[in-house]
Amino acid sequence: MSDRMAADPGMDLLALRAMMNELGDRGAEPEDVTYSEVDADGVRGLWCTPAGAAADRVVLYTHGGGFVANSIASHRKLAAHLARATGARAFMPDYRLAPEHPFPAALDDALAAYRYLRGQGIEAGRIVTAGDSAGGNLAVSLVVRLRELGEPLPAGIVAFSPWVDMEHLGKTLDTNAETDALVQRPVVEMMGAMYLGESGSPTDPLANPLHADLTGLPPLFVAAGGAECLLDDSQRLADRARDHDVEVEFSISPGQQHVYPFMVGRAQEADDTVSAAGSWARAKLGLS
Amino acid sequence: MSDRMAADPGMDLLALRAMMNELGDRGAEPEDVTYSEVDADGVRGLWCTPAGAAADRVVLYTHGGGFVANSIASHRKLAAHLARATGARAFMPDYRLAPEHPFPAALDDALAAYRYLRGQGIEAGRIVTAGDSAGGNLAVSLVVRLRELGEPLPAGIVAFSPWVDMEHLGKTLDTNAETDALVQRPVVEMMGAMYLGESGSPTDPLANPLHADLTGLPPLFVAAGGAECLLDDSQRLADRARDHDVEVEFSISPGQQHVYPFMVGRAQEADDTVSAAGSWARAKLGLS
Repeated sequence: MSDRMAADPGMDLLALRAMMNELGDRGAEPEDVTYSEVDADGVRGLWCTPAGAAADRVVLYTHGGGFVANSIASHRKLAAHLARATGARAFMPDYRLAPEHPFPAALDDALAAYRYLRGQGIEAGRIVTAGDSAGGNLAVSLVVRLRELGEPLPAGIVAFSPWVDMEHLGKTLDTNAETDALVQRPVVEMMGAMYLGESGSPTDPLANPLHADLTGLPPLFVAAGGAECLLDDSQRLADRARDHDVEVEFSISPGQQHVYPFMVGRAQEADDTVSAAGSWARAKLGLS
Repeated sequence: MSDRMAADPGMDLLALRAMMNELGDRGAEPEDVTYSEVDADGVRGLWCTPAGAAADRVVLYTHGGGFVANSIASHRKLAAHLARATGARAFMPDYRLAPEHPFPAALDDALAAYRYLRGQGIEAGRIVTAGDSAGGNLAVSLVVRLRELGEPLPAGIVAFSPWVDMEHLGKTLDTNAETDALVQRPVVEMMGAMYLGESGSPTDPLANPLHADLTGLPPLFVAAGGAECLLDDSQRLADRARDHDVEVEFSISPGQQHVYPFMVGRAQEADDTVSAAGSWARAKLGLS
């Protein structure tokens, strides 16, 4: 993917989005899951319901894609696998993308989805937010926002390869440039600029959790690949959360790529991480 | 889509495939359907199982994409909607694509999938072949091949906007060029050349059913859009089948695009056609 971007530096947004949607085809089809689209108070959402899932426990899954690409369609299988591993339903908001809708549109939509769940009678403590890459950012930022608003917090946060640093200060952006097959510095710079738009700041705590006070957040599960350019984002997020007395479970899968859980059902490392995240979330949700 | 191809005449195959995969996002998510991947004797396949479907009746669905693009992933929702409307399961072979695997690789894989179903205990007369565009070609060509081989035939054939003419002689390629948003003459010429490869002939009856003896084929359901460049392919296939005493149900949806059933769940015309195809197939399969 990074080769294709390097070969076509002028790749337009439509082509980039089309290419990134291919990520959704990497994983295996999760079995025994049904799906249902709903209008979640103005935001389109997809329910993923594994057979036997606890109906009152929900993984609120915000998909990745650099805030500018991907959708509930491309990330359906990953969210459904995580839901299965958790024993809960997953709910995926099809949040608005930049640059058409810059920060904080995506976060607003994630908040609307959270409130929708609560309006459906789901208790805050029976929700885990989750996401990958930019969606991992949203899974954290949503909870920071909820704490600011004084609303009840979810039981935990799962982040696969979260992209949180809008200043692009991670050392692995350079040191892992040769091993990362998806993400390169010019890509995150471009996507970050699109997300922040004209008025957003790269140090806004709601756009960049590395600048947020994480005190009081629920437990955080972070998994990253050892070969990825955004490894330092995961590392620094985990460090900062620990500094703020948040319970953190952080793992690095050696040699793995950005959001390697996309390979769930086809690669052991992905299966292991989705399984671990599900077990972790299951415990936070009080499921036996 | 045709605008994007016109703007980038040198669009490479990876980019074309990525763009065409977007078609899979057009439809709504079908409810109450579960999925399961299997190895169908060397061909990867996807089962789509609607709640309450007759387990012994199967829609063998070959996806479209010009023989060079798309997959079981991009066409999952369309196949699952048709399965729901039929009251049967759908089975989708992830057949090999050209140009890496030219004719007759895709047809060989479709045949392998058919034999896999029969090996699973599904009677030939309880199978309907179905597909869209190039997959509609395969849905017909497979049955021609089965008749040549003396193997039992399925109960019917469903083709949405089938692309059958590898000589590109249809008048609507020119007369609908201004209204078709997906398919233009240069595209089908390029894809046809890729499919036929170095040794295939555009008049081979197994690549071009307009040159096939269709005598003895089971009933055929064809639906096409009035605005599409390949309308004449559907019209001529229906005409030829009737000339060979095949029972034909043919409809044109005015103003609609190539494979407009992709919009199922979001457009009334698509819903109507998928519903009509399902009712038709249900009757051919002996389901009440």
